Amino acid sequence: DPFLKVFTLNSNPKLAEEIAHNIGTELGKCSVKTFSDGEVQINIEESIRGCDVYVIQSTSEPVNDHIMELLIMIDALKRASAKTINIVIPYYGYARQDRKARSREPITSKLIANLLMTAGATRLITLDLHAPQIQGFFDVPVDQLLGVPILSDYFSQKGIDDLVIVSPDHGGVTRARKMADLLKAPIAIIDKRRPRPNVSEVMNIVGNIEGKTAILVDDIVDTAGTITLAANALVENGAKEVYACGTHPVLSGPAMERIQNSKIKELVVTNSIPLPESKRIDKITQLSVGPLLSEAITRVHELRSVSDLFE
Amino acid sequence: DPFLKVFTLNSNPKLAEEIAHNIGTELGKCSVKTFSDGEVQINIEESIRGCDVYVIQSTSEPVNDHIMELLIMIDALKRASAKTINIVIPYYGYARQDRKARSREPITSKLIANLLMTAGATRLITLDLHAPQIQGFFDVPVDQLLGVPILSDYFSQKGIDDLVIVSPDHGGVTRARKMADLLKAPIAIIDKRRPRPNVSEVMNIVGNIEGKTAILVDDIVDTAGTITLAANALVENGAKEVYACGTHPVLSGPAMERIQNSKIKELVVTNSIPLPESKRIDKITQLSVGPLLSEAITRVHELRSVSDLFE
Ligand SMILES: Nc1ncnc2c1ncn2[C@@H]1O[C@H](COP(=O)(O)O)[C@@H](O)[C@H]1O
Ligand SMILES: Nc1ncnc2c1ncn2[C@@H]1O[C@H](COP(=O)(O)O)[C@@H](O)[C@H]1O
Repeated sequence: DPFLKVFTLNSNPKLAEEIAHNIGTELGKCSVKTFSDGEVQINIEESIRGCDVYVIQSTSEPVNDHIMELLIMIDALKRASAKTINIVIPYYGYARQDRKARSREPITSKLIANLLMTAGATRLITLDLHAPQIQGFFDVPVDQLLGVPILSDYFSQKGIDDLVIVSPDHGGVTRARKMADLLKAPIAIIDKRRPRPNVSEVMNIVGNIEGKTAILVDDIVDTAGTITLAANALVENGAKEVYACGTHPVLSGPAMERIQNSKIKELVVTNSIPLPESKRIDKITQLSVGPLLSEAITRVHELRSVSDLFE
Repeated sequence: DPFLKVFTLNSNPKLAEEIAHNIGTELGKCSVKTFSDGEVQINIEESIRGCDVYVIQSTSEPVNDHIMELLIMIDALKRASAKTINIVIPYYGYARQDRKARSREPITSKLIANLLMTAGATRLITLDLHAPQIQGFFDVPVDQLLGVPILSDYFSQKGIDDLVIVSPDHGGVTRARKMADLLKAPIAIIDKRRPRPNVSEVMNIVGNIEGKTAILVDDIVDTAGTITLAANALVENGAKEVYACGTHPVLSGPAMERIQNSKIKELVVTNSIPLPESKRIDKITQLSVGPLLSEAITRVHELRSVSDLFE
């Protein structure tokens, strides 16, 4: 279809290649560079008049640069008469500031939603928003896909017996439940609590993990503090071995060291954020969301339902 | 006035200090940091409910970070019930993409205007926009101040005889005219033209510069290509000596080397963009826009006219 165009910016060029290939097209011609003073310079090098354009870009680190690239690209597409501007954001950054937890805090995930719409985005396709409420921050259609089926498939192929799926905190129980359903396993929850102020947290485990292979599941693995502490607590409490998985490998600060030194046997993530060479270690397995995103784009473009991709 | 608050972000902390001091207040308490993954984290540490807030931030390098800081700060102020959010942008970046020069180009200066308004800015105070038309990109009041009076004052105090004010291109003639009026001097224009494609430009000088002290004036000194070539052409054509001045010292890429090696005797700029240690050389003089911006903020706050600050 000559009216379907896929463009990539600088966050996920390989994933974008894979998506274009799956869809049976080539990436749109476009140069994304910076001027001498660091301002983003974008040139779209083919006509997109009247086209349905899909732009692949995670708002991952360097997050502010990736956001500005995306906003400027949307602006250029709008002024070049694209029919629709569908932004595909595998990892939606700034998501964790999604409420005023304290006075005078910004709500960055709503701000980013407003910025994207102001620039001219007409649809968002994304993966595992930190909170599903972020969908409501947009006044254009949002298709939120899930990483759990991809992660579950991987573990399912390992054929591990006597599994238990563990949520590292109360916020992630729904996700763990979904994974448990797919893998036909029970769940457990790490119930962190702080007995008194300034006393360190107690990792209480709700559910039976004794002798079982535990799979910890989260959405974002950032500094990996939560997940490595949880893994160690599981082993101390009798789990046979511990795997961990999460859709978005942010892996900032002390993450790599913590993972290396933890009781985690293997950490499984997706390529919503590409891993630089230094983070491609034996303990980390990266699965592609390319097939999922390609399928979603094809269905959206053909006006077919994508709802079963959420399961 | 307890309802007047001045905040700074990370681009111009010293200038902001100076402004707060001139106004007779202290900078608002606020921490601007980044999370481990590079996302901007802003905490406003005092109540600003019902206040008129002035936020000082140039969108200078690192431009995308400075823009995101500003947008997130505006969002936080809005949600914390500021009465008005007045953004003071001494150097407004992304200004040079202010029209579609070629097909499928973005118009970033309009995009940035839209983003700032979407975040919640209710007024812009700025200095020497690259094109005065950018004022019209905003649907909120814009007060554009000018650097030329400050630059002219400096040269006036030198008491140089037989001056000529030179515009390095046709776009800057209005600015040169204004400076010439203030310094009671004639003007000249560098009339660049390319006789045939792929033949280098000819620097033709319109106006009499023979034996005179020339002052080149521009708004932005970025890579300094224009201004250093112009300076050399002036000397070759008989100017006695050449000064240069510009409001905004972007000074990116080869700028410093070009300035050092040029025929420019002294380059005079403002602190709309602070100069890092490596750029503070003998040949460059930096004048403060602190007094001008303080006066503008005071007058805006007291609902007095600022129009004479433009002259
Ligand atoms: N980029 C970030 N890195 C680490 N923490 C963050 C980030 N953005 C927001 N937060 C904090 O994470 C908390 C929300 O996380 P959660 O409780 O998992 O939804 C809030 O206290 C935020 O201040
Ligand atoms: N940050 C930048 N650095 C250098 N050139 C730029 C920048 N932004 C825009 N331009 C180019 O500068 C030209 C406009 O400059 P001017 O003719 O001086 O208004 C256009 O061709 C732009 O593509």
